Amino acid sequence: MKFAKRMDYLKASEIRELLKLAEKPEIISFAGGLPAPELFPTEELAKVSEVVLKEHGMQALQYGPTDGFTPLREKIAKRMEVFGFKTNAENILITSGSQQGLDFSARVFLNEGDIVICESPSYLGAINAFKACMPEFVEVATDAEGMVMEDLEEILKTRDNVKMIYVIPDFQNPSGKTWSVERRKRLIELANEYDLPVIEDNPYGELRFEGEIPPSLKAFDTEGRVIFLGTFSKTFSPGMRLGWVIADAPILQKYNFIKQGADLQSSTIAQREMNTYMEMYDFDAHIEKIKKVYKNRRDVMIEAIKEHFPSNVTYTYPEGGLFTWVVLPEHLSARDIMPKALENNVAFVPGGSFYPNGGNENTFRLNYSNMSEDKIKEGIARLGKVLKEMM
Amino acid sequence: MKFAKRMDYLKASEIRELLKLAEKPEIISFAGGLPAPELFPTEELAKVSEVVLKEHGMQALQYGPTDGFTPLREKIAKRMEVFGFKTNAENILITSGSQQGLDFSARVFLNEGDIVICESPSYLGAINAFKACMPEFVEVATDAEGMVMEDLEEILKTRDNVKMIYVIPDFQNPSGKTWSVERRKRLIELANEYDLPVIEDNPYGELRFEGEIPPSLKAFDTEGRVIFLGTFSKTFSPGMRLGWVIADAPILQKYNFIKQGADLQSSTIAQREMNTYMEMYDFDAHIEKIKKVYKNRRDVMIEAIKEHFPSNVTYTYPEGGLFTWVVLPEHLSARDIMPKALENNVAFVPGGSFYPNGGNENTFRLNYSNMSEDKIKEGIARLGKVLKEMM
Repeated sequence: MKFAKRMDYLKASEIRELLKLAEKPEIISFAGGLPAPELFPTEELAKVSEVVLKEHGMQALQYGPTDGFTPLREKIAKRMEVFGFKTNAENILITSGSQQGLDFSARVFLNEGDIVICESPSYLGAINAFKACMPEFVEVATDAEGMVMEDLEEILKTRDNVKMIYVIPDFQNPSGKTWSVERRKRLIELANEYDLPVIEDNPYGELRFEGEIPPSLKAFDTEGRVIFLGTFSKTFSPGMRLGWVIADAPILQKYNFIKQGADLQSSTIAQREMNTYMEMYDFDAHIEKIKKVYKNRRDVMIEAIKEHFPSNVTYTYPEGGLFTWVVLPEHLSARDIMPKALENNVAFVPGGSFYPNGGNENTFRLNYSNMSEDKIKEGIARLGKVLKEMM
Repeated sequence: MKFAKRMDYLKASEIRELLKLAEKPEIISFAGGLPAPELFPTEELAKVSEVVLKEHGMQALQYGPTDGFTPLREKIAKRMEVFGFKTNAENILITSGSQQGLDFSARVFLNEGDIVICESPSYLGAINAFKACMPEFVEVATDAEGMVMEDLEEILKTRDNVKMIYVIPDFQNPSGKTWSVERRKRLIELANEYDLPVIEDNPYGELRFEGEIPPSLKAFDTEGRVIFLGTFSKTFSPGMRLGWVIADAPILQKYNFIKQGADLQSSTIAQREMNTYMEMYDFDAHIEKIKKVYKNRRDVMIEAIKEHFPSNVTYTYPEGGLFTWVVLPEHLSARDIMPKALENNVAFVPGGSFYPNGGNENTFRLNYSNMSEDKIKEGIARLGKVLKEMM
């Protein structure tokens, strides 16, 4: 039997094997991108579920429309004002997490060999989803303000089969960086000039610990070329698999065609539950609670890094989201350090996998949302010890 | 902005527009493939949901493994004995409905231009999912015993880029036909001879009203080339989006890679709820209840067809499942009859769309699971009147 050519690009991840080891209870893991489960609104959801099944059980368990449950789409549209743009239910497609929005974006825009531009580093899950469409990845360097626009412009000038730009402007995964407003504006100018779609992936934007939420790329989009991906995974529950795509009608129609073939629709009952939850409870208050806990965990992690990591290591200070990013001296490899860390019962994700074209093995990602403050202190101390031994 | 080439193959469906009209409450619709919502176990699920959230809320709302929740996969494995084969959790991937299994099958096996062999007619949703991989469809005629094996053999002998065989041997959608055991055995012989994967789509197999469930294709599979697709959509709830893929390890690994990029995993909570439902309640008794209701509805529909349809119309007698299939004299087009039927407040799906290469407009599909016996009687009488007027 012969598999399709695209399967040659999808390989078992060595990191995945390492991460399986990180699941042991004695290990303090900064590896995954997991929300804090103790903050999940389990009691509220039990009540919501009862109400939905009692009042609309037959509809909740039946097939529903491909684009999603309209009252939920209306509520999402309203919530988008926090990101500086107005939209409406007709421009929203409900997806099974924003991972599905990434997969669909590749399928809507990319032929084999087309170029997708992304930040360097970029989100591992997006890279893997895109790979199934066999594109060429062109990475653009980032600094403290986000993607370096001069580098992007040079690429756009010199390469003629660029098809899509993929970015995570708020608390980027893995780097924790947030783009300046100027860079956002400039990206849109360049996308307009080169007539390119921009995939704006925003899973963490609402989890800002300090300062104001900056306008999204979509807020500067006058030509309907930004496709905004959102999710309830980090603000409510990843296990429910609810995300959304926002795009202008001609583009969203294409996403709908793909959704129809891919899985017909996202869960009817999950959509109704999320909608009823927002009617019965104060979702914003719930998000505030999450932010407070994560802010403290970030603070504890950054303090512990200052205390325990060798001084020739750099790291980002994330103003929100789930991750900080560590850069080691160039001669070190995080992949080599990982087994040693596991021996000391602490885990992280080596950074190399976040670079679609490889290299940069002297980097790793730390997640602070999923461990208690005590464990963060202890885990970073353990990791600092390992790093000092490897220097 | 340029879309990917695959998007040229995905078009808005004219039928979809017609079906929107069929949603009006005054219309008796035999168009969709909807289960009877009054049979959904809404009260049981409310109790299940409470238990799951109370006892395992944090795990149920968290990310879970890509391949699915192991206790659920174990239960599914056991249930497969009814189809004459043994399997285990390791060979099962949980999907978001079996539609997702269809999409993944195309992505695992099909390059552009590869041939996928299917029954003529075949399931519309599979055709649409496969189209995104831009294959060539080769249809094989079916008779009362299933796919005609001589025709299949001729195609396998003469075409050299066949990559995949897709069939629905039990209560086929749309035809309602079930394959004989002999044809099943022969298909596997041919698949072995030509080294081809076989996608066995079985959403309705457990809904058999009379006689014994025949062994599935997978039951005759000695070389690990049958990929079996199952679902809870017709036996429990389509709104929950839970299906599964069963395959040997080297193949299932490929499906897992695609799942990872496509949406990471199916809903953790939905999987846990389904698992707990099967622990707390008698799932087989629930299926018996569904079968009893659907059997009566089929009987009423077949009787009404006999009474009201013109005598030069043929139809299948399904031994289970959700559909019967009507063939009109060749000069008639079901697409032309549809507007007239809607005027008379009755709807069906014109059959042409079930033929990937077109033609056969003198056919239509009738669903009997979603309407009460009274409505079936009245709807078929209305449709009979329309058909007689069009003759």
